[in-house]
Amino acid sequence: MPDEAEVPDEQPSAAEQRIAELEDQLLRTAADLDNLRKRYQRDLDRARSVERAQLAAAWLPVVDNLELALQHADSDPDGLVKGIRVIHEQAVAALARLGFPAFDPTGQPFDPVLHEAVSTLPSEDATPGTVLAVVRPGYGTADALLRPASVVVAKR
Amino acid sequence: MPDEAEVPDEQPSAAEQRIAELEDQLLRTAADLDNLRKRYQRDLDRARSVERAQLAAAWLPVVDNLELALQHADSDPDGLVKGIRVIHEQAVAALARLGFPAFDPTGQPFDPVLHEAVSTLPSEDATPGTVLAVVRPGYGTADALLRPASVVVAKR
Repeated sequence: MPDEAEVPDEQPSAAEQRIAELEDQLLRTAADLDNLRKRYQRDLDRARSVERAQLAAAWLPVVDNLELALQHADSDPDGLVKGIRVIHEQAVAALARLGFPAFDPTGQPFDPVLHEAVSTLPSEDATPGTVLAVVRPGYGTADALLRPASVVVAKR
Repeated sequence: MPDEAEVPDEQPSAAEQRIAELEDQLLRTAADLDNLRKRYQRDLDRARSVERAQLAAAWLPVVDNLELALQHADSDPDGLVKGIRVIHEQAVAALARLGFPAFDPTGQPFDPVLHEAVSTLPSEDATPGTVLAVVRPGYGTADALLRPASVVVAKR
């Protein structure tokens, strides 16, 4: 047995017991902190790669259908445009499911957060500052904007 | 003031000082642990949405070009196939950048991890168990496989 156990007349005092207890608790809490740090770093890396795989999987049908459309382009040239239209809809729907729906602000008041003015045109009908046409659609929402819509704005 | 502070002749002993010190350290470490938990949950959510936005942005050119190809389909029907071919290459390149390159195992030995046999065919030239043709390409690597390649395998 170790020597310490045989030291006579040395019962640990209440204070000594409390110190040993606290030191033990402190060590365990510090170890928890360290484990948590390591675990969360792994979780963070994994969350990113899971997210990446899910999104890539969402795009696979688009890529597959582009490939099929090209394979049948020679035998069915008229079907190609129709096929591409479906693929485009599929791609826009995939972006919407990711939280980035397409938006077309034609007729709405210009909003510098969601719109990017590429030019202005005089208009007799429209209120100045109204979006006359969308050159390139925007994707997303005010909270999570992927890209503003490129628009033509009515001037006086 | 509390009574305790006025108890006379009671200088804290070394043990009492050590207990106070340890209790303080323990409280601070526990608070660190709690803060870390909260912070990492936020980080995790943010990492996911940053990843999502980056991937969605990688796909925007594909969607834009599909739209442009459709707009010019009437005026330039011959250009459409060429345009779609470029868009398909762009989409495959986007998947490769995400860590999921396309692969075509024609001529390689069948690998149940990376390939999915859709049929077998007799072949005079090929070694049995060799991939004769790829029906649908695979995407990814052995470590991060998005989809196995669908293949036709040589039988005896």
